[in-house]
Amino acid sequence: MVVLGIDPGYAIVGYGLIRYENNRLTPLQYGVIRTHAKLPIEDRLHEIFTDLTKLIDAYKPDAMAVEKLYFNTNEKTAIDVSQARGIIVLTGKIAGVPFAEYTPLQVKMSVAGYGKADKVQVTEMTRRLLGLRKVPKPDDAADALAIAICHAHTAGSGLNNI
Amino acid sequence: MVVLGIDPGYAIVGYGLIRYENNRLTPLQYGVIRTHAKLPIEDRLHEIFTDLTKLIDAYKPDAMAVEKLYFNTNEKTAIDVSQARGIIVLTGKIAGVPFAEYTPLQVKMSVAGYGKADKVQVTEMTRRLLGLRKVPKPDDAADALAIAICHAHTAGSGLNNI
Repeated sequence: MVVLGIDPGYAIVGYGLIRYENNRLTPLQYGVIRTHAKLPIEDRLHEIFTDLTKLIDAYKPDAMAVEKLYFNTNEKTAIDVSQARGIIVLTGKIAGVPFAEYTPLQVKMSVAGYGKADKVQVTEMTRRLLGLRKVPKPDDAADALAIAICHAHTAGSGLNNI
Repeated sequence: MVVLGIDPGYAIVGYGLIRYENNRLTPLQYGVIRTHAKLPIEDRLHEIFTDLTKLIDAYKPDAMAVEKLYFNTNEKTAIDVSQARGIIVLTGKIAGVPFAEYTPLQVKMSVAGYGKADKVQVTEMTRRLLGLRKVPKPDDAADALAIAICHAHTAGSGLNNI
């Protein structure tokens, strides 16, 4: 199966595409969608929609896994990131890709084996599991790959939530 | 001009369509889009997208005005409503409808004439300005009509923000 992991954001959306077959994980592609701060909100949301649609068309993932959001700080950012996350979820639905979501804790548990793993540990485990020479950059792309791995593990174990 | 006002929501999206010509406001249609609580999030967001697209296709509004969000209470609701608002903004963009947004204060000022107007006063003024016999129901539809009036007043005065 091909899994598209997404680290939701407004200015930067991280994405990571992996293949999971015979208990093996292979990286296919990863990176970020950036939207311009000077553009009005409707254009930025539309950019996420069109870029993500192209990505799905190119790689035809069997599932899309998106991180759940939690906020307790900047309200403005929370609203903007949530708006963008709505677009991400809708884009997958329009393209017919089954949707799953995971908490940051689930991702840490799945990738690093324990819930108190820090960012560096999760990124390093992501690198190892995917057989990459260097840790994936930027962080948003690394996070997206970790979410994709979490879904591959969960779906592969029959515990998938899609 | 035809203005589509939207009161953003997740379970209920209020909408109100008005015509503004020669300083006269005429109601065209109002109501709500409801999404089923039992459906998964991606289906609910998709329902908002498809229903709103149909509404825009039917009435071809010249502008869409959406209320700005403010939250200081339920975080879960804030994320869900924001996700839905992202869909609303994107839907307008895809349909090519110019977008405007207003704060609750701007709406009160525009419809009732002062910022401390309560809900009942705003709804009653909405009824009068649109020449309706009864106050529009439900509240979400009344709010959407008020937002549409706010945009008509603002755009009509040359102070539009689209």
